[in-house]
Amino acid sequence: MKNKILNDPVFGFINVLEARLIGIIDHPFFQRLKRIKQLGLTYFVYPGALHTRFHHTLGATHLMGLAINVLRSKGVEITDEEELAAKQAILLHDIGHGPFSHALEHSIVNVSHEDISLAIMQALNGIMNLETAIKLFKGQYPKRFLHDLISSNLDVDRLDYLKRDSFFTGVSEGVIGTERIIKMLNVHDNYLVVESKGLHSVENFLIARELMYWQVYLHKTVTIAEQMLIKVLKRAKYLAMKGEKIFATPALEFFIYNDVSIEDFDKKVKINGTDMTVLQAFTLLDDYDIMSAIKVWAFSDDKILSELATRLLDRRLFKIAFNDTAYDFYSLKQIESLIAKELGLEENEVEYYFINGKIVLPKATSEDSEIKILTGGKVVPLSKATEILNINMFSKSAEKHYIIFPAEVRDKVLRLL
Amino acid sequence: MKNKILNDPVFGFINVLEARLIGIIDHPFFQRLKRIKQLGLTYFVYPGALHTRFHHTLGATHLMGLAINVLRSKGVEITDEEELAAKQAILLHDIGHGPFSHALEHSIVNVSHEDISLAIMQALNGIMNLETAIKLFKGQYPKRFLHDLISSNLDVDRLDYLKRDSFFTGVSEGVIGTERIIKMLNVHDNYLVVESKGLHSVENFLIARELMYWQVYLHKTVTIAEQMLIKVLKRAKYLAMKGEKIFATPALEFFIYNDVSIEDFDKKVKINGTDMTVLQAFTLLDDYDIMSAIKVWAFSDDKILSELATRLLDRRLFKIAFNDTAYDFYSLKQIESLIAKELGLEENEVEYYFINGKIVLPKATSEDSEIKILTGGKVVPLSKATEILNINMFSKSAEKHYIIFPAEVRDKVLRLL
Amino acid sequence: MKNKILNDPVFGFINVLEARLIGIIDHPFFQRLKRIKQLGLTYFVYPGALHTRFHHTLGATHLMGLAINVLRSKGVEITDEEELAAKQAILLHDIGHGPFSHALEHSIVNVSHEDISLAIMQALNGIMNLETAIKLFKGQYPKRFLHDLISSNLDVDRLDYLKRDSFFTGVSEGVIGTERIIKMLNVHDNYLVVESKGLHSVENFLIARELMYWQVYLHKTVTIAEQMLIKVLKRAKYLAMKGEKIFATPALEFFIYNDVSIEDFDKKVKINGTDMTVLQAFTLLDDYDIMSAIKVWAFSDDKILSELATRLLDRRLFKIAFNDTAYDFYSLKQIESLIAKELGLEENEVEYYFINGKIVLPKATSEDSEIKILTGGKVVPLSKATEILNINMFSKSAEKHYIIFPAEVRDKVLRLL
Amino acid sequence: MKNKILNDPVFGFINVLEARLIGIIDHPFFQRLKRIKQLGLTYFVYPGALHTRFHHTLGATHLMGLAINVLRSKGVEITDEEELAAKQAILLHDIGHGPFSHALEHSIVNVSHEDISLAIMQALNGIMNLETAIKLFKGQYPKRFLHDLISSNLDVDRLDYLKRDSFFTGVSEGVIGTERIIKMLNVHDNYLVVESKGLHSVENFLIARELMYWQVYLHKTVTIAEQMLIKVLKRAKYLAMKGEKIFATPALEFFIYNDVSIEDFDKKVKINGTDMTVLQAFTLLDDYDIMSAIKVWAFSDDKILSELATRLLDRRLFKIAFNDTAYDFYSLKQIESLIAKELGLEENEVEYYFINGKIVLPKATSEDSEIKILTGGKVVPLSKATEILNINMFSKSAEKHYIIFPAEVRDKVLRLL
Repeated sequence: MKNKILNDPVFGFINVLEARLIGIIDHPFFQRLKRIKQLGLTYFVYPGALHTRFHHTLGATHLMGLAINVLRSKGVEITDEEELAAKQAILLHDIGHGPFSHALEHSIVNVSHEDISLAIMQALNGIMNLETAIKLFKGQYPKRFLHDLISSNLDVDRLDYLKRDSFFTGVSEGVIGTERIIKMLNVHDNYLVVESKGLHSVENFLIARELMYWQVYLHKTVTIAEQMLIKVLKRAKYLAMKGEKIFATPALEFFIYNDVSIEDFDKKVKINGTDMTVLQAFTLLDDYDIMSAIKVWAFSDDKILSELATRLLDRRLFKIAFNDTAYDFYSLKQIESLIAKELGLEENEVEYYFINGKIVLPKATSEDSEIKILTGGKVVPLSKATEILNINMFSKSAEKHYIIFPAEVRDKVLRLL
Repeated sequence: MKNKILNDPVFGFINVLEARLIGIIDHPFFQRLKRIKQLGLTYFVYPGALHTRFHHTLGATHLMGLAINVLRSKGVEITDEEELAAKQAILLHDIGHGPFSHALEHSIVNVSHEDISLAIMQALNGIMNLETAIKLFKGQYPKRFLHDLISSNLDVDRLDYLKRDSFFTGVSEGVIGTERIIKMLNVHDNYLVVESKGLHSVENFLIARELMYWQVYLHKTVTIAEQMLIKVLKRAKYLAMKGEKIFATPALEFFIYNDVSIEDFDKKVKINGTDMTVLQAFTLLDDYDIMSAIKVWAFSDDKILSELATRLLDRRLFKIAFNDTAYDFYSLKQIESLIAKELGLEENEVEYYFINGKIVLPKATSEDSEIKILTGGKVVPLSKATEILNINMFSKSAEKHYIIFPAEVRDKVLRLL
Repeated sequence: MKNKILNDPVFGFINVLEARLIGIIDHPFFQRLKRIKQLGLTYFVYPGALHTRFHHTLGATHLMGLAINVLRSKGVEITDEEELAAKQAILLHDIGHGPFSHALEHSIVNVSHEDISLAIMQALNGIMNLETAIKLFKGQYPKRFLHDLISSNLDVDRLDYLKRDSFFTGVSEGVIGTERIIKMLNVHDNYLVVESKGLHSVENFLIARELMYWQVYLHKTVTIAEQMLIKVLKRAKYLAMKGEKIFATPALEFFIYNDVSIEDFDKKVKINGTDMTVLQAFTLLDDYDIMSAIKVWAFSDDKILSELATRLLDRRLFKIAFNDTAYDFYSLKQIESLIAKELGLEENEVEYYFINGKIVLPKATSEDSEIKILTGGKVVPLSKATEILNINMFSKSAEKHYIIFPAEVRDKVLRLL
Repeated sequence: MKNKILNDPVFGFINVLEARLIGIIDHPFFQRLKRIKQLGLTYFVYPGALHTRFHHTLGATHLMGLAINVLRSKGVEITDEEELAAKQAILLHDIGHGPFSHALEHSIVNVSHEDISLAIMQALNGIMNLETAIKLFKGQYPKRFLHDLISSNLDVDRLDYLKRDSFFTGVSEGVIGTERIIKMLNVHDNYLVVESKGLHSVENFLIARELMYWQVYLHKTVTIAEQMLIKVLKRAKYLAMKGEKIFATPALEFFIYNDVSIEDFDKKVKINGTDMTVLQAFTLLDDYDIMSAIKVWAFSDDKILSELATRLLDRRLFKIAFNDTAYDFYSLKQIESLIAKELGLEENEVEYYFINGKIVLPKATSEDSEIKILTGGKVVPLSKATEILNINMFSKSAEKHYIIFPAEVRDKVLRLL
């Protein structure tokens, strides 16, 4: 019997025994996740954060196995087929991510990774049976708690990525009691719940999530780098659309020179002299296409493209300023004019050197799907059960507004605020 | 030059270089801390939690060294003598702890460990110069921030014990970013402050403290065991006061057969045929005196003493029930009667089998000494700076009321509530 | 269903589900292991090394469960009863240890802990069925490989204690790939074997064992402390046998005032006014009896007893010198005379201040029970399979001779060598 | 004052304070190391092993700082300028590495990375003063021990990479006592030595090195993947030299279409329309150039190139067989014929599907530069001081011969051996 054992510094060994899971892992659609970093440009700040979506997905699948064992030991019935489907679903939950996913979706390929994930699952469903997995993924399977394990405020996705991201960044504040939380899982009224002995571990989990957001996912330098990446990609697409020659691998070239929507994903195109669907073309993209192109663009004749690319590669990043509320229109206009003048830019060029946006930390758990605590036979939403957490975490998203601009105009910009 | 290197699984190596610190460590008063567990009976629940006050104190001293280096690197002036004094003070801050400190103070030796710590420091001051250390300890030294490092809501005491207790219990929720917090320390207006980049680490620290309280320090089984220990010790003292022969080491015997107050600590007594002060007698006590006595008491002719001692040793513990508010007088009386009747106890014996009390988790930081966050050149109290923490953590202590009783009457007791 | 979950900083959570195992754990004979440190006086050098035989034993039982799962997954047949018996046997393998076992056996109770373990198992066999466990323990059960898991050069005992001792001492060199080794276990010809992919992990395991011996188990300061403890106990027994009054708990008193052999263990005695067998009396002993007595002995009228006890408590230890070969008789006599003269000792008193002995690191694996490597379907002894390890590790024990003496005579002693 | 703080999951925080070091780190030549994985294709087996030469180099520089502090505390004189130079040298010691260094040197760019490192240092010496650093690097500086820290059998390079590679792969056998070894460093007769108390830590270090070689660096799957990468690159170069159009970034294109030697590195070329030296062109290469090209080559019209590239990307790797001695010429010829026939290959095509080579684990420490143990004031080479290690580790390199071939011919190939 074939059998995959993975060395994982986070969980030790990860065993994958089922042939039908190994079939997914061995598929080129999945192997490409090895070439897509989980945290994009975060390594600009945390040099160890180079782990991939491949690694994360396998970790989450491992946790799914543990969780199912715990639930079964408490008398929850889960068939072998359901176990397989739950593992298939979690294995595939990130399959639609492209390289630097967030940046890509805001520049070159304006299609959500959730849509693409589903499209890929359906494509794979032709060569292997994924019916139940797809139902689970969509939340259409009767055993609701299995969907909760795949996608909810306390799913194995988060249980893996918080722990894994904490490990590879070295941010000890993100450490969570994954093992303890999983031991405290149970099912009540068809929902996934946490026994009350696990309340503090869940509180710690939410705090760790919050801290990881501020210290890692929304770190100001990461935000700047990502925004600059978006601008680089947008400029490349702009030039391409104008008909200029832009270096890229053939797959990336297709997406730079064409606007596609999810509806186009089953259309035929020819890439590398080979006929394929747009979906297949998309699955050729990974971090290597993006970064190898940017490295060449650093030498572009287009001054804006070459400058942005060079700054990104050499880590000479723009600066950022934050505000609790939105910047007012008038100030933004003034700064725009200032930057145009100082850097000698045309009006339509300023957008590459001046970015106004906001970062949002979504509320801890959305109203309709709060983490449920099982206490004395009854289920209480976490926001009612907690005595530690600020109620604001549950009632509203935290957000910060920012402006990003070149270092050389910082003093003058700040004086305008 | 003499030089002590300690192997510490928490911080790696701990170096102690200063002869005047080594002199303290080598003193019998300090060596006895090797025989006093930091967490008393917590090992009933967390079998790894056997670390001692000796180990914790050295860890805190190590952190004091790191903190002073950080502050100096930021331009804060600290003389070598002040560094020495700060380290002496932290080395001695727990010196007055007896074995199972909390239990002991509520049964046999009704003197606070803080008073005893000061008495011991003054006694040692005769053989080595501790003037500045004592001033620092009392908060009477002009550089307030040095006192803050020794005793405040973010002192090196807590920074060590949370991390250490988390390590030895295996409770991952207690993990804190000690190193990061220390790197973010600074001094403002003579107070110890944390730079705003460290805000999230401090929030995590407070959460970790809260979780450690509930999961470890105030764990219900630990609470029961400690209350039972108090009852064992009280019963022994009661019998001794009645004139019965109670086995004990000579030092423990003295405190069982005599009531002493802090004023008596410089009086002369003869223990083991040797003249000494009550203070010196106290420093002969450690975990070994208490547990060796209890092991003999398990065979006492007094049924209550022998039964309580046996239950404690064999871990056949009482049960506990909790209530958010105080139990009402009438219910308590009813339960008392019930237990007396069920177990065939005299009226004055019920107190050994029925305990009513409360556990208190002190508020995160008391009003007058809140952790201070330095942001944009200004100091803001943490409760204002945080967006994550529940304001209740700062405004009130959390408390739970409990009753403790033998397992065999549980059903009947619960029916009365 | 009752169920024990233990928090273990080494392996996370340890589950004990079987009622028949919980019955053992709850027995007073087993609970006392909570009061017996795994590494005796090692905490003199490694202050974190306070973990107990209780903790270690549960860890080894946890590993037994993992190992049995691995073997079953490879088609090795193990019945539920055999699994239970194997776990019972490992749970009880150290049950005969007294406090500071090695020291005790060389001073007060001259009976091997193996003999006592067996006697206790047989005593427990009266109240619960331990037939198979005892057969496994003695190596009399047909499935030889189960015995190998309990007691061999690669048993779960060592797999736990190396990892655990490394964790609590903080000696990173002792870290071993426990999980990987267990995954590589298999059975061949009824013997426990390691698949060849695990060869390097086993080599690392042997090296870690060697390094832990030199850096921890045979550490010179630990050796000195243990030898001094033996002398303290011997002196107390000597005085007792002379009829002098020696403070001790009643159980310890019995063993100080009586010489017993394993044959005496079923005889009746009265301790604490209670009739019991010598075996039961022995199970009353733990670290607390020994240390509480030594603390009183520090005030003894006998100068030798009080001095040795005080030195041990305050960590003012003797010094040690090593030699590759045995010290010659003439030199030893000279040193004896020197020490007697310098310290003003009688001839029969010198033995308390001058100790000559050797430390022995047993060879890696004894000839008849070498670790077996399964390579290409054949079994090869490790000493043939390894290319890294020195053959001497397999062919001979390493030993060092030492003399121990008071610091004040060091210079003069060394001049005589 | 500028100041760089790096989050490192291995050592916590890494501080870089000196402006002259920050100048190196910020240089594009150094920033590119962020895009070169330390362990090439090892992530095929250990998915966490994605850390970069950038990260490793900064870790080694951190250890250099610790080592210098230890030596100074023992009275070894090291000036501030020497400290800076030693850190510059270690920071730059890997600067000449290209992407997948070993594979690249055996296919496209036949120049050793050591030569390139030196060339880059000399180039940088023009814009910053690196005179002393270069002398140290070449071993031409009078204080020999500083060179030993940079490049010897116990240099900070190895102390970092063993620990770091162990961390990211999750291979616990590679854990070493870095901190302890550094604490035991000293200088004797101008050489770097280890005090005898550190002997066991050094033995553990050598064993860890050995185990990391077999389990990671020379892992069979990694070996296969690397050999396949070499073949892919060779085929691309072969086709390019024949004049065919091969996709590549402009920098990679230059090296595919041109043979260069170290002498050519200062010649001028035009890349991306920009004049630069060959050296500068080389510094444009990183992992992204290689992998993005291979992804396109998977669609090449050349069957060999496309097949090899596809297999590598989808991880459908060749198989390997090992032999202790070299395979005989006759067998190799037979296998060659077999493979040609089975796969329908021309004679000059077989080399892409059949590889014969050897892996070599260099002896522990070469004769002229053995690790030196300081014991009793004298220096002894490690091979004399050790009692654990096999003398073969010091006297000869271990090697294994292998043949690599497609899975589909395995059975027939093995029958020929």
